[in-house]
Amino acid sequence: MAVINSARFFQLMDEQAAIGATPDGGLNRPTSSADELIVRQWFADRARRGGLDFQTDGAGNQSAILRCPTPDAQTLMIGSHLDSVPNGGRFDGALGVVVGLEVALALKEAGTPLPFHLEVVNFTDEEGTLRGLLGSAAMTGRLSADDLAAVRGGAEAFNAGLARLGLTVESVLSAKRDFASVLGYLEVHIEQGTRLERANLNIGVVTGIVGVRSYWLTFTGEAAHAGTMPMDDRRDALWGAAEVIRQARETIMREFHPGVVNFGMISAEPGAFNIVPAKVKMALEFRHGDGVILESMQTALFTIIEQAAGQYGLSVSIEAAGLVPPAPMAESMVNLIEQAATRAHLTHTRLMSFAGHDAQSLAGVTPSVMFFVPSVNGISHNTAEYTTPEDCLRAAEVMLNAVLGLADAAV
Amino acid sequence: MAVINSARFFQLMDEQAAIGATPDGGLNRPTSSADELIVRQWFADRARRGGLDFQTDGAGNQSAILRCPTPDAQTLMIGSHLDSVPNGGRFDGALGVVVGLEVALALKEAGTPLPFHLEVVNFTDEEGTLRGLLGSAAMTGRLSADDLAAVRGGAEAFNAGLARLGLTVESVLSAKRDFASVLGYLEVHIEQGTRLERANLNIGVVTGIVGVRSYWLTFTGEAAHAGTMPMDDRRDALWGAAEVIRQARETIMREFHPGVVNFGMISAEPGAFNIVPAKVKMALEFRHGDGVILESMQTALFTIIEQAAGQYGLSVSIEAAGLVPPAPMAESMVNLIEQAATRAHLTHTRLMSFAGHDAQSLAGVTPSVMFFVPSVNGISHNTAEYTTPEDCLRAAEVMLNAVLGLADAAV
Repeated sequence: MAVINSARFFQLMDEQAAIGATPDGGLNRPTSSADELIVRQWFADRARRGGLDFQTDGAGNQSAILRCPTPDAQTLMIGSHLDSVPNGGRFDGALGVVVGLEVALALKEAGTPLPFHLEVVNFTDEEGTLRGLLGSAAMTGRLSADDLAAVRGGAEAFNAGLARLGLTVESVLSAKRDFASVLGYLEVHIEQGTRLERANLNIGVVTGIVGVRSYWLTFTGEAAHAGTMPMDDRRDALWGAAEVIRQARETIMREFHPGVVNFGMISAEPGAFNIVPAKVKMALEFRHGDGVILESMQTALFTIIEQAAGQYGLSVSIEAAGLVPPAPMAESMVNLIEQAATRAHLTHTRLMSFAGHDAQSLAGVTPSVMFFVPSVNGISHNTAEYTTPEDCLRAAEVMLNAVLGLADAAV
Repeated sequence: MAVINSARFFQLMDEQAAIGATPDGGLNRPTSSADELIVRQWFADRARRGGLDFQTDGAGNQSAILRCPTPDAQTLMIGSHLDSVPNGGRFDGALGVVVGLEVALALKEAGTPLPFHLEVVNFTDEEGTLRGLLGSAAMTGRLSADDLAAVRGGAEAFNAGLARLGLTVESVLSAKRDFASVLGYLEVHIEQGTRLERANLNIGVVTGIVGVRSYWLTFTGEAAHAGTMPMDDRRDALWGAAEVIRQARETIMREFHPGVVNFGMISAEPGAFNIVPAKVKMALEFRHGDGVILESMQTALFTIIEQAAGQYGLSVSIEAAGLVPPAPMAESMVNLIEQAATRAHLTHTRLMSFAGHDAQSLAGVTPSVMFFVPSVNGISHNTAEYTTPEDCLRAAEVMLNAVLGLADAAV
């Protein structure tokens, strides 16, 4: 019977965390940085030393593969990423790859026969140093040459980054894979939030990755002398913006829980102590895991925006700045993780992922699921990011149970 | 009997408006600009050609004086300013100086004997190209060498501006005058607001010039991922700021009318669509003509700020950025203007001046009053600033009546 080797597991976690380590215990390993190239080499070495097959594709995705005896069997994929945001934490992404690697090594060591190949993937550039979800999107074939020409940071920086990885736009596009032979996709990640910690639960089973919609709002009123213009004659653009912030918060919390809304940027023009703001520009972003509810959130928010503008005699423009559709997880896979957690005597709950992950690329092409383990204080994208060793180990145990559960079901 | 010569009055208005005229009918005549030097020459020429005495002081204040037969008589001052903001209007300040000049010329022409000298002053730099209220503050002796060393735009630019006017810091400080011989101060100005227009009234008699207090507010919460951090765990600095904007508006309008409050600048950090704002910096300014009420406004606003911060788990700092005390007008002079307006069969009301004027310097040293004529749509500090010829003429008639009323009272 395969079991997680906790000593090896923590050894693997420590080894990867040493590559690009920051003095305060974090990780600085953006895609195509010197340390990210080193951690790729580490992953390849560790896979080969463990007796796993190793391969890379044209998008730089690295696979450590435990082959089953039947060559034309399907493949179960486990994945996440080894790149980090600048000065990030040692768990975000890396935990998922190391868990996958340990599960494959444990199964290999135990000689447990599986009815499918097990492929552990380190996806390229999940965090967006170059583009975000680059490797997983390329593998699913949902990237076009046009997408890659329109990357946020410009084609020049993008191509230079690819070159450091030994890749080209053409090679990235060639990474598209046929998912007919793929049984499903599993990913474990730290929660990056406080829901598990607050509820004192071990495992969060993700039912969907949220859709994200972002807009620029511009309220236009009229500049005026902030002394001589009476209050009730003002068309103060900031009054409308403030009303929207308050109402959006209340409405989303009351009617769309656990959906979220954020106003991350704001500015007022002309911008002086003694001038009534004529124009306020504000960034709106909102998220929900259910596409229908996300649409309802948008309707509710746009209504609030229009009414607040009308209330204060303002005009308002709403300009789209981004649209990521929700990625629902497969119900069969959600059940699989719940059973795996129960078998490990762990408490669990269903929740949505409010951040993007490689699983949202995979969800469109194969039955996929993610699960979370708690983040202390919800801190993430920060060198202070922390998940306890117990919770890291639970991640590996649930993942092993899930693989074994799938194997039982397939027999 | 002295009467306003409307042809001469409009001729004077047109002459001054041609100096620094913008193509769209406005005026660009900042202190020490080439055109401001030209309009000073124009004022001196017009005074001398009209048979008035002319003198300047060390602060560049220009006086056109109608002397009375008694050399040691007191002096009644009428004043305003001929400088403008960049691309301002042709009425702001200039109307008051031209009205004073026309009143002096009309009295001179009629040979009306006055029991006081009448001095019409063009004060230096009311608008603040160099410092703001520079000439009037210097005349009252309420400027120190330290004040002049600490000017907003830096000492170098200030001294260069003075040099273009043929002045020095020493000469400005020497402009301090003994107000024992001054009977009072009268100033007419455009309203720069909409109160007279909305109430369909001819004249606004100013009972006080508002005090102005300004502060920087900094709300500090905690940055977080705008997806993964649940709404009820966020400490969003913008939530506090938005709550303050809304409550401040409501409270000031409900409890402190006609006091005003403005938030003219706002920014959020770190500043991204997907990051909950950790810090919001916002400019607060509020005004009222009554010092006691201004203090109550501050108490109410600070309470709102502290409570909003507490409500959203934020800390807040309040940093003083400016403090101008209110300048009450003399009740005797308010009555004088009301009688002068009534005598001209004009409708009038009492109101506060919500902008700063030279009268606020003078109010501290001699019985002073201002009155307003309507601004079309309240537009000011803008080339589209406009006051009808009828209202300009009414300004001159009320001013003449006021001077004659004072003369009658003095006899």
